Amino acid sequence: MTPEQRIEELGLTLPAPVTPLASYVPTARTGDLVYTSGQVPMLEGKLHQTGKLGVDLGVDEGRAQARICVLNALAALKAEVGELSRVRRIVKVVVFVASAPDFIEQPQVANGASDLLAEVFGEQGKHARSAVGVAALPLDAPVEVELIAEVA
Amino acid sequence: MTPEQRIEELGLTLPAPVTPLASYVPTARTGDLVYTSGQVPMLEGKLHQTGKLGVDLGVDEGRAQARICVLNALAALKAEVGELSRVRRIVKVVVFVASAPDFIEQPQVANGASDLLAEVFGEQGKHARSAVGVAALPLDAPVEVELIAEVA
Amino acid sequence: MTPEQRIEELGLTLPAPVTPLASYVPTARTGDLVYTSGQVPMLEGKLHQTGKLGVDLGVDEGRAQARICVLNALAALKAEVGELSRVRRIVKVVVFVASAPDFIEQPQVANGASDLLAEVFGEQGKHARSAVGVAALPLDAPVEVELIAEVA
Repeated sequence: MTPEQRIEELGLTLPAPVTPLASYVPTARTGDLVYTSGQVPMLEGKLHQTGKLGVDLGVDEGRAQARICVLNALAALKAEVGELSRVRRIVKVVVFVASAPDFIEQPQVANGASDLLAEVFGEQGKHARSAVGVAALPLDAPVEVELIAEVA
Repeated sequence: MTPEQRIEELGLTLPAPVTPLASYVPTARTGDLVYTSGQVPMLEGKLHQTGKLGVDLGVDEGRAQARICVLNALAALKAEVGELSRVRRIVKVVVFVASAPDFIEQPQVANGASDLLAEVFGEQGKHARSAVGVAALPLDAPVEVELIAEVA
Repeated sequence: MTPEQRIEELGLTLPAPVTPLASYVPTARTGDLVYTSGQVPMLEGKLHQTGKLGVDLGVDEGRAQARICVLNALAALKAEVGELSRVRRIVKVVVFVASAPDFIEQPQVANGASDLLAEVFGEQGKHARSAVGVAALPLDAPVEVELIAEVA
């Protein structure tokens, strides 16, 4: 089964890649590595939720937002490499969680990103990860995810 | 025109590279990639502005600070590779913006970094980017920029 | 002297690598690069200290926590490559410091990480670095450190 088929089987849809309105691009490739820009939870042209964990969103909601961020990252990655089966490994993921100062469950939120990558890519989806709580994110996004993929 | 000539044409000057007073270095190269340390807006030996976006600085001021961070990153990069024409691609940029909890215009601030890279390097300056709002930065800097460049 | 011998000579002990209970892994290798997951100051199965710099911990305490984070990163790296003498270079380190909004001494905290890497690896331990102050970290950790190593 291809990653695209697994995404469909999970009942999910790859969104159209979001085109940044600026002097940067959704992905940049160097050698076998593709770096994605930080992805916020855009769904049908707008953020699915806004606000901070520990104030406006609970852990389950945050996890769902992290999942949407990954879908956007995969859409960007697919636009770069054509087919997601060209992904040999998800190498690194950073999950930035907009957090109230007393919110410390960033790993549980970040699992929304990590679990989806494992569901889509299996063992090749297992990555090194950092999860951190930040003061605020673009457009009041609750989560932002960037990743590095090794591709064939 | 070389990147150095474009910098001059923009009316800008590459600063002397800032030497960290610690066990780290301004840049590290591995293969074709050069990683810069995080750069704060040092100008003539001190921070050009201090404080947080949404409290002490507005978006336009933040954007100007991001631009100065990039000049420092380019100075470090030049010290590593000799001539900026050896840069084949700016691959990845992370812009950390010291932000009040309700400041959500990190992308507009980060554009100061991205736009300057596009002005200096053209298409090769277009990079993947993450912009995040953080609680505080070294020396009360309003912005910190790190980048990865692919070099020849 | 091997890096492991230097660690012993410093009176330190490499901990058992922490196994993430999730869909991510402690390290991921691509080509000659090993990326570690973000490491918090786990010591004998629990965080050595919790809280934020500028509220609960002073600079010296933060520096000590950053040092423990690096020990955990080195344990993860050793598990990936077998012997730390296979490390050719520490390329990049990011130090996330859980910070009160007015705490701006992230570099001094991060020196705990950078200095230990220089003590263990000598010149090969000198890396590019970013140090940033974040709103909150997993499990209320005061510091989180991720690194990239070039290995043989």
